[in-house]
Amino acid sequence: MNGPGRAIPHTTSRAAVLDVIRAAGTISRAGLVDATGFTGATISTVVRKLIDDGLVLETGRTESTGGKPRVLLRLDRTSCYAVGVHLDPVGITYVLTDLTGAIVSRMTRAGTGNEDPAVIVGRTATQIDFLIDGAGVDRERILGVGLVSAANGSHPRQPAMRHWLDFPAKTELERTTGLPVVIGNDATAAALGEYWAGSTDGFPIFAAISMGAHLGAGLLVNGLPHHGTGGFAGQIGHVCLDIEGPVCWCGARGCAEILAGPEAVVDAARADTALARTTGIDGEHPSVAAEFAAVVRAARRGDTGAIALLESSAEHLAVAVRVMANIVDPDLLVLTGPGSATAGPFYLPAIQQELDRAFFARAEHPVRVRLSTFASTAPAVGAATMALQAELVPMYPGQRLPEGIEQETTGA
Amino acid sequence: MNGPGRAIPHTTSRAAVLDVIRAAGTISRAGLVDATGFTGATISTVVRKLIDDGLVLETGRTESTGGKPRVLLRLDRTSCYAVGVHLDPVGITYVLTDLTGAIVSRMTRAGTGNEDPAVIVGRTATQIDFLIDGAGVDRERILGVGLVSAANGSHPRQPAMRHWLDFPAKTELERTTGLPVVIGNDATAAALGEYWAGSTDGFPIFAAISMGAHLGAGLLVNGLPHHGTGGFAGQIGHVCLDIEGPVCWCGARGCAEILAGPEAVVDAARADTALARTTGIDGEHPSVAAEFAAVVRAARRGDTGAIALLESSAEHLAVAVRVMANIVDPDLLVLTGPGSATAGPFYLPAIQQELDRAFFARAEHPVRVRLSTFASTAPAVGAATMALQAELVPMYPGQRLPEGIEQETTGA
Repeated sequence: MNGPGRAIPHTTSRAAVLDVIRAAGTISRAGLVDATGFTGATISTVVRKLIDDGLVLETGRTESTGGKPRVLLRLDRTSCYAVGVHLDPVGITYVLTDLTGAIVSRMTRAGTGNEDPAVIVGRTATQIDFLIDGAGVDRERILGVGLVSAANGSHPRQPAMRHWLDFPAKTELERTTGLPVVIGNDATAAALGEYWAGSTDGFPIFAAISMGAHLGAGLLVNGLPHHGTGGFAGQIGHVCLDIEGPVCWCGARGCAEILAGPEAVVDAARADTALARTTGIDGEHPSVAAEFAAVVRAARRGDTGAIALLESSAEHLAVAVRVMANIVDPDLLVLTGPGSATAGPFYLPAIQQELDRAFFARAEHPVRVRLSTFASTAPAVGAATMALQAELVPMYPGQRLPEGIEQETTGA
Repeated sequence: MNGPGRAIPHTTSRAAVLDVIRAAGTISRAGLVDATGFTGATISTVVRKLIDDGLVLETGRTESTGGKPRVLLRLDRTSCYAVGVHLDPVGITYVLTDLTGAIVSRMTRAGTGNEDPAVIVGRTATQIDFLIDGAGVDRERILGVGLVSAANGSHPRQPAMRHWLDFPAKTELERTTGLPVVIGNDATAAALGEYWAGSTDGFPIFAAISMGAHLGAGLLVNGLPHHGTGGFAGQIGHVCLDIEGPVCWCGARGCAEILAGPEAVVDAARADTALARTTGIDGEHPSVAAEFAAVVRAARRGDTGAIALLESSAEHLAVAVRVMANIVDPDLLVLTGPGSATAGPFYLPAIQQELDRAFFARAEHPVRVRLSTFASTAPAVGAATMALQAELVPMYPGQRLPEGIEQETTGA
């Protein structure tokens, strides 16, 4: 990426128009001009191309309000589909979505555990066929597959799924499915999933806090992911909470994750003989995520020891989230990802309380915190939207592309 | 701001084209198509309008490389100018820039201290006249004034310039100068100043770390400031370094600023009788920034006590900067602002060392840290560019506007 093109913060007009139509449901060409700031000429050119491509339909007209009634546009939601796969140690989630990112079909299978990536990818290809056939969707209409996990945009020494880092998942899955594959980070995908599902209520600055074996955040500004230079943005697990604290696996001292992340919670639970027994984590160790889930289940059953561990973890994570908020100054945070589906209720109150009490700009505006209504599928849905974007939206040369998305020729 | 328009991450095509021409120096229409991803039709419409407005000139042709030679475009740098004013406790910096953000004339006057804002704004208006007349620029060509300080995008309880928070600086300066005034945060302005001056080398994700009475950071992504929801993004001074630490004036515990910011350095220096005497801060207290500057001068003279205080401060600030880097994942950091001009050399090594040692994604890419080559004027230059942008670039309805920039009608 070189040259002045890098100076421009927008996707192509095609991307902008598609996103506005999707978010609006139905909208007129004049509405697109207002919403995008493009000229009427640009809008009509872009819309004509989208109609020719079969992605957009003209659908009825606005009520005449004195002036000439306007033709309304909407996406042809069944014109194409995408598959989203979220590889997680505790479960692999598959979704098939239509052009609007709406879930047509979903399924969940056993987690990756520590199995050989090649075996898992082979099985994944079979499951994808099963998903598509089961939904009765013409395979010709599947644009591609989005595959997300903690292994993308992750640290070479990151414990979870470390054995995936050198595995050519994209190439292998493309070979076995015969479909284009986009790979990405699961926290960013979760943020995209929430955005496409409308969870962001149009708030322009939004972070999805993703809980699993690790803590991560996906940042969205005006609907576009902030991946960061290397795809590593949003490392709330590596916010310093104690400059003199213990050394984290990332190499820094006193990170939120080493002090209070899922693994710290699991270690504390294992050190508590009674709790270790009730949670069953005194035996073999399937994965940190699975053991953390066991502690959460104990807390949901009312186990006071488990509850105390989660509350302490939540108080620490809340400060890390507040630090991120002091740097990003967001409108809204959503707790999402498989871990949040169960642990979220234990973390949400502490995070909201810390933001209300100590967020730097609290006098100017609140930072809203919500628990996702589809936490466990959000990353997979986001993965599918990445596949849709990659196939439908040409990027211009200067634009930073999410890892795994091929450069396409400029178009508008 | 409502509706789908908020979902679109781009400025108008006019803004994009102006920025690309500015950054490129000279470029052809075809080059603009490549760089922006807009259609040739859009580019020629936008360029025609910019030429009609007298902002862009056709200047010669490219060497013929077999194909038809292309007309090159450049900004007409003297077509219009803007004034940038940086109100800082230690000094008020004025710059007059041309359309490209290049400094035509500059001057520095006594700082704001604790004087009555009304008096200072009155004097500022006089100095602006002086600046314009001295440069011999036709007042008709001055598009406006950018006024930046720590008081914008700042916390109601923030010590520095707190007395400015309720003062209608924009309205008052518009009344006294008869020019449109844009107000903004000085850290963000410093980042814009560095960007327009080319200090970012085209790196898309960039943060300007601004040192003065307070620590702040201005974040730029693809040349656009990330202001945050309330204009409060980049609060590196309020990154937690000790969850059990002392309570900061912002209400949180163990912030970088309370532990190691300029005021903490000054307090430590004052507690050291010998150092207090050599630095002369044992007497009256003009301002934290002025006293911090005195400690820096002592360190530059080789005072070991002063050097030790700055090195300890630098080690703490370095961790706060690394935490920001773990969240934003930037390419480049620049130490800038009046404070950096003198203190920067004491902070730069510690920050680079911490990033090399503990930045989360260090295995993937380095985060470069530089000392600005025009640290003391960068905020004022950024202020001038804000005024240029505000007058020359209509925003579309959906776009978030920096505080103080008036909404204009959509154009492209």
